Amino acid sequence: MSTPTKFLLDESKMPTHWYNIQADLPKPAPAVLHPGTLQPVGPDDLAPLFPMELILQEVSTEREIPIPEPVREVFRLWRPSPLFRAHRLEKLLGTPAKIYYKYEGVSPAGSHKPNTAVPQAWYNAQAGIKKLTTETGAGQWGSSLAFAGALFGIDVTVFQVRVSYDQKPYRRALMETYGARCIASPSNETNSGRAILEKNPNHPGSLGIAISEAVEIAATHDDTKYALGSVLNHVLMHQTIIGQEAIAQLEMAGDDPDVIVGCTGGGSNFAGIAFPFIGQQLRGGKKRRIVAVEPAACPSLTRGKYAYDFGDTGHLTPLTKMHTLGSTFTPPGFHAGGLRYHGMAPLVSHLKELGLIEAVAYHQTQCFQAGVSFARAEGIVPAPEANHAVLGAIEEAMRCKREGKAETILFNLCGHGHFDMSAYISYASGQLVDQPYDESELAMALAGLPSVPA
Amino acid sequence: MSTPTKFLLDESKMPTHWYNIQADLPKPAPAVLHPGTLQPVGPDDLAPLFPMELILQEVSTEREIPIPEPVREVFRLWRPSPLFRAHRLEKLLGTPAKIYYKYEGVSPAGSHKPNTAVPQAWYNAQAGIKKLTTETGAGQWGSSLAFAGALFGIDVTVFQVRVSYDQKPYRRALMETYGARCIASPSNETNSGRAILEKNPNHPGSLGIAISEAVEIAATHDDTKYALGSVLNHVLMHQTIIGQEAIAQLEMAGDDPDVIVGCTGGGSNFAGIAFPFIGQQLRGGKKRRIVAVEPAACPSLTRGKYAYDFGDTGHLTPLTKMHTLGSTFTPPGFHAGGLRYHGMAPLVSHLKELGLIEAVAYHQTQCFQAGVSFARAEGIVPAPEANHAVLGAIEEAMRCKREGKAETILFNLCGHGHFDMSAYISYASGQLVDQPYDESELAMALAGLPSVPA
Repeated sequence: MSTPTKFLLDESKMPTHWYNIQADLPKPAPAVLHPGTLQPVGPDDLAPLFPMELILQEVSTEREIPIPEPVREVFRLWRPSPLFRAHRLEKLLGTPAKIYYKYEGVSPAGSHKPNTAVPQAWYNAQAGIKKLTTETGAGQWGSSLAFAGALFGIDVTVFQVRVSYDQKPYRRALMETYGARCIASPSNETNSGRAILEKNPNHPGSLGIAISEAVEIAATHDDTKYALGSVLNHVLMHQTIIGQEAIAQLEMAGDDPDVIVGCTGGGSNFAGIAFPFIGQQLRGGKKRRIVAVEPAACPSLTRGKYAYDFGDTGHLTPLTKMHTLGSTFTPPGFHAGGLRYHGMAPLVSHLKELGLIEAVAYHQTQCFQAGVSFARAEGIVPAPEANHAVLGAIEEAMRCKREGKAETILFNLCGHGHFDMSAYISYASGQLVDQPYDESELAMALAGLPSVPA
Repeated sequence: MSTPTKFLLDESKMPTHWYNIQADLPKPAPAVLHPGTLQPVGPDDLAPLFPMELILQEVSTEREIPIPEPVREVFRLWRPSPLFRAHRLEKLLGTPAKIYYKYEGVSPAGSHKPNTAVPQAWYNAQAGIKKLTTETGAGQWGSSLAFAGALFGIDVTVFQVRVSYDQKPYRRALMETYGARCIASPSNETNSGRAILEKNPNHPGSLGIAISEAVEIAATHDDTKYALGSVLNHVLMHQTIIGQEAIAQLEMAGDDPDVIVGCTGGGSNFAGIAFPFIGQQLRGGKKRRIVAVEPAACPSLTRGKYAYDFGDTGHLTPLTKMHTLGSTFTPPGFHAGGLRYHGMAPLVSHLKELGLIEAVAYHQTQCFQAGVSFARAEGIVPAPEANHAVLGAIEEAMRCKREGKAETILFNLCGHGHFDMSAYISYASGQLVDQPYDESELAMALAGLPSVPA
C-alpha cells in the first residue's frame, strides 16, 4: 500500500503540557460539594487524600499545565504511542471511510492508565508520601499504579473487586510482580469492608465498595494518600497527552478526523482522546462528532440521571454532579470490568449536557464480535473495554458505507486483551451472554440519590 | 536524563532484505542428510513440507534476500521494533556498562515469532497453499502462525504440547481468536500421536512429538504444508531483521555493542539479533562477544553433543548436525516452554564450533529473579524465555562493574510475559524450583543418536 500503516512521533515531539479543558468551557462544570454542608469543597477538604499539586490541578483553569520532566522521562518507555491507519479493517468492511486508531496498549501495563498513574505517583513522591492506596476492577488501573509506585519507591496497596481478584489471578500477579500488595474487596481491613461482609460474607464486591476501602485507609493514615484512576478532572487531564499526540500524528498523515470514538466507563480514556479535539472546536476550530460508547449493562451516559451523587458505595467521597445510575447500583458481571462504574466523570457529563458529545450503548456480545474481527484484520486483540470503541468505530464506518461518505474516523484503542482471554474463551464457546441490568434496581438506586437543592 | 530512552526507526528505514549468514561463513555448515540414504537431501525431498521459495532460501548462499513488499506491509504493524537504553536498570545495578535492549514483544503475538510466521504464511499463500500445520510449546509460535494465517487466508492447525495446552488456556484462546485450530499433542489424529498414546494415554507431550504430528499431516495431505518456528536456516534468516534494525538504531544512539546476548531454545531469536553483527565481523568488522543463554534444564549448547540427529521424536525429519541432547530426551517441565527443545539450530551450532559464539546455562529461579528486577526498573514483564537473556545481560553488566569497564551490552528482549503470569505466581510464592534434567536419561538419549559415518 502506498500510504503508511503507522505514524510515530519522535520522543522530542512528545507533548510538554497537559491540556486542561476547563480553560475553554463555555460555562464551568458544577462545583464539587461537601456531603455534610452541601457547600463547595476547598483544597483543605481534599488534602487528606491527595497531594496539593494534584488538588490544584483538579480546580485549575489554566489551559496548559506543564508535565514534569521526570514524568516525561518515564513516558519515554512507551510514548509517544503509535497511531495506526486500519487499512485491513477498512478493506474487510468495504467502507470508503478512513479509520485510524491510537494504540495505548503499548504501555508496560497494557493500557492508557499509566498516563495518569506515573504523574500521580510522582507528585505523591515529591510530597514525601511513601504509601498509596487505590481500588481496581479488572486490574488495568491497579497494575498501572503498581508499576508507577515501583518507579518512585512508593508502597502501593490495591483493593481489587473480589470477583475480579478471584477470576483474574494474572492481573493480580502483574501487580505483585511490580511489588504492590493486592487485597480482595470487600475486606476485613476497613470499616467499610467489614460492614459489607457482615451482611454478606460472600459479597462479590464492586468498584464503589473498593473505592470506599481505599479512601478509608488513606483518610485514616497520615502517611498514606489515595489515587484514583478515572473520573476526577486531573486524571482526565493527564490523559490528554493521547489526543494531543493524535492531533500531531494525523497532521503527519495529512488527515483530519470527522468522528472521534472512545469507550467510557469513568471517562478517562475517552477524555484523553477527545478533549484536545473538543478544545480546538471550543476555540473556534472544526466541529467534529465525538461519540462515547458505553456498555448497555452499565449505561450511565445514556440511561443515568444527571445529578449530584457519591463516587463510592460507602459515601466517603464528596458529591459531584454527573450522569449516574446511583451509587448503590450494582451492574451485572460483564467482562469489561473497567466500564463497570455507576457514574461518569463530571467533565464528560458536563460536555454531554452542553451537547458537545454523543453517547451510544452496546451489549458485550456485539463488542466481542467486533473485537475478534479487529484482531484477525489488525493483529491486536483488544481489551473488552476497548472492544466497545472498536464496535463504535465499525458502526460509523458502516454508516459511511451506506451513505457513500469517505469520512475520517479516529478511535482510541485503550488497551490490549492479553489479561482478558478468559472472556474471549467465553465468547468463542458461545457462553458469553448479554446481561441486562435490573430495571427495578436501577429505579431504586436512582430514587436513593442524595437530595441536593438546585 | 540527557540521553534518549528509546530509538525508533522510521518505517522507511525498515530493512528491505534479510541477511543470510551462509554467504559469509568461513566454511559451510554440514549438509542435511536423508535418514534412509544418509545422502544430502535435495529440494525435492523437502517439497512435500515446504513451498519451493522457502526451500531455496534454506540452501541459498546469497548474502541478501529481498523481503517481499506484502510481508513488509504487515511488518509495519509493529516494525521497526523499538531499541531501548535501560537507564533505570543500569542505575539499579550501579554498573558503568551501557545496557540496550531490542524489544520484540510489540508484535501482535507478543514475541519475535511473527517475523518468520508472516513470510512463511505469505510464501505458502503465493504457492496456492490453503492449509498449514505446525507445533507449539508455550504457544508463542502457534499464536504467531495463527495471526499470519488470518492475514493471508490460510487455515492453521496447531499441535500444542499437551502440558501447555492444559496449563496455558489463554495462549490457546489467542490462537483460536485468530481463527486457528489447536489440538493437544500427542493426539489421536496422527499415527505418531496414536503410537505414543497407546504406550501412555496420559503422555504430557513434547515439542519433538508435536513436530512429528504436524509433519505427518503435511506429508500425507497434498493441500497442506508445514511451518516450523525455529531451527531451520530460512527461519533464522527471517529473524535477522531484528539485528539489522538494532545496528541502525545503535548508530542513532552513537553506540556500538561490545557484548550481544540472546536466549537460545531452537536458536531463532538469538540468530536474529546476533547474525547481522557476526556477519560484520566475518567481513572484517569489529570482533564482539556473542553470548547464547540457555536453560540449565535443557542445555543443548553447553552439555549436548555436536552430532547428526533427528529434529523430532517420531523420526520423520531429515538428519541435521547440531548440538543435541538426543531426540528422545524429555527436558523437565520448566516454564520457558520455548526453550524446551532437544536440539540447537544447525547454523548456531556451527558458529559455536567455529568459536564465534559463547554459551552459558542458567537455572530458572535466577532467571525469574532477574526478570522481576527488570520489570520493576523498566516496566516490561519479560517472557520466561526472555528472562534468560535478561539475566545474561545483568551478569555481563555486573562483570563490567567488577572490572570497572564501561562496555556496551545489547540484548534481545524477545517477548513479554503476559501469557506466562502463572510462572510469575509460582516464583512469587516460592514454589518455583530448579529442576535438573535426569543425567541417566541424557546419557541414554545421547547413546541412541543415529549412527552417521564421518
